[in-house]
Amino acid sequence: MSVNVLFAARPDRWDAYETPLRNALSDAGVDARLAMDMPADQVDYIVYAPNSEVQDFTDYTRTKAVLNLWAGVEDVVDNPTLTQPLARMVDEGLTRGMVEWVTGHTLRHHLNTDVHVLNQDGVWRKDIPPLACDRPVTVLGLGALGQACAQALAHLGFSVTGWSRSPKTVDGVTCLSGDTGLHDALADAAIVILLLPSTPDTANILNAETLAMMPQGAVIINPGRGSLIDDAALLAALDSGQIAQATLDVFRTEPLPKDHPYWAHPNVTVTPHIASETRPASAARVIAENIRRGEAGEPFLHLVDRDKGY
Amino acid sequence: MSVNVLFAARPDRWDAYETPLRNALSDAGVDARLAMDMPADQVDYIVYAPNSEVQDFTDYTRTKAVLNLWAGVEDVVDNPTLTQPLARMVDEGLTRGMVEWVTGHTLRHHLNTDVHVLNQDGVWRKDIPPLACDRPVTVLGLGALGQACAQALAHLGFSVTGWSRSPKTVDGVTCLSGDTGLHDALADAAIVILLLPSTPDTANILNAETLAMMPQGAVIINPGRGSLIDDAALLAALDSGQIAQATLDVFRTEPLPKDHPYWAHPNVTVTPHIASETRPASAARVIAENIRRGEAGEPFLHLVDRDKGY
Repeated sequence: MSVNVLFAARPDRWDAYETPLRNALSDAGVDARLAMDMPADQVDYIVYAPNSEVQDFTDYTRTKAVLNLWAGVEDVVDNPTLTQPLARMVDEGLTRGMVEWVTGHTLRHHLNTDVHVLNQDGVWRKDIPPLACDRPVTVLGLGALGQACAQALAHLGFSVTGWSRSPKTVDGVTCLSGDTGLHDALADAAIVILLLPSTPDTANILNAETLAMMPQGAVIINPGRGSLIDDAALLAALDSGQIAQATLDVFRTEPLPKDHPYWAHPNVTVTPHIASETRPASAARVIAENIRRGEAGEPFLHLVDRDKGY
Repeated sequence: MSVNVLFAARPDRWDAYETPLRNALSDAGVDARLAMDMPADQVDYIVYAPNSEVQDFTDYTRTKAVLNLWAGVEDVVDNPTLTQPLARMVDEGLTRGMVEWVTGHTLRHHLNTDVHVLNQDGVWRKDIPPLACDRPVTVLGLGALGQACAQALAHLGFSVTGWSRSPKTVDGVTCLSGDTGLHDALADAAIVILLLPSTPDTANILNAETLAMMPQGAVIINPGRGSLIDDAALLAALDSGQIAQATLDVFRTEPLPKDHPYWAHPNVTVTPHIASETRPASAARVIAENIRRGEAGEPFLHLVDRDKGY
């Protein structure tokens, strides 16, 4: 008997996902009926984007799991109508893309390539940067994305510290945790990369107090979530020189409004939420594998802990 | 008995190298007299920069080796007065710095970060780049630097091809050689990185013919030697769009003259010969190890093959 899979995302995503999903379900041996519309009480699985029209899960009485297309679940995890299991997206393609974006922007700041990109004026500015081994980098957040980025940077030679709320171990990375650990992780960091989930605990984790813990001239890179930063505090730290530069990919409001001071600040680089893009081909394989597991009675992968919020 | 080591480089390098060299010689157990000036017939070893005042080696009758401070030896290898063994610099710090520069600029082009660095104008330009695995990169030259860069890029997920005149094997890298191999290495490359030595054989290896072998819109990154590129042919290929962008760190004349068309070309990024900078601390250890070897009757490391020119 075929399983009914509802694709609940913005209609323009259907074009990107329909073929990869059909192929992945077929490859996983799942006989599925996949559609953008079907009666709620016939849906076995929901492939879900939190900005879809489906915001009330009450009528999805036989739905075995909600399979998120996004890595972030903050816009769905607290939905009181959601009683079904919720799985995050852990997409190999998303992880690889994030590693590439984080490594690229870390090296951009490390090498200060902007000096040359912005000044092709005939002046021979021969400033040699230190080696990566002399550039301490701290990654806040050691989930799948944080771990992968921390290890890629360590492999390139950076001196990498990782911080997470609960203790973790990552090969090649100095791992700290808890409040004391956060202070130590920030105190030496030349470059700080934010890869924490968005939860009540992580909101404004970069604020006036924590920004002041960093050495003067530190650089902030945020491909995580806009809510991690107290924007007014960061702007003040940029103005005072406490923070030398920031590259920000995520914001509380997206697209970032044209009149937001981040656009105009000379030491801020805004990028348009491109670091953590799910790639349809690999994401479809993750979705299909979870449906296969559900049908085989095996535990789902990447289930969200509703108490922790991720 | 102590060995006499002449430091033959521009005087401003003495400040950077004196302490590291003394420390490294001491650590290697070599009792050395190190100076910027001593009678030629008393010199046991020359620590050498090709732009030093020493250009005639005839009177250095007891000199056991000339130990180059630079990776490139093209300005000394054909000196007819040089009968002493010549060693290249293979500096771990130089290699690491090169890997960082090459990886940073490869990711810069791969992610197209310039679009955001140059346009902080409030427009949300959400173009998602392909993953590195779908971006073929070719490294011309598989010496110590080329191998290290090729492997770092492969580790980041790029699909990497390496080319060298004679066949080589590098883990994780598709290795090609010879003239046919050069064609194949260029035919699919989205990004081409030049890390060949400067020899009569490699002069103008990027010329109108080889530039035309690349797919339209390819990117050139040259941290190797200025002589590798036929500059007029590259400018023509940039104007036609055959080559989309070039990042060039080395030139036939350095500093690159202010009126050189590379400075003004919108699709060229000039950097001031900073990719391959020898780092005094690690370079001094290489020099000291070679002097220790010479005194112990062991073979020198990194000897230049005078026929090949590198």
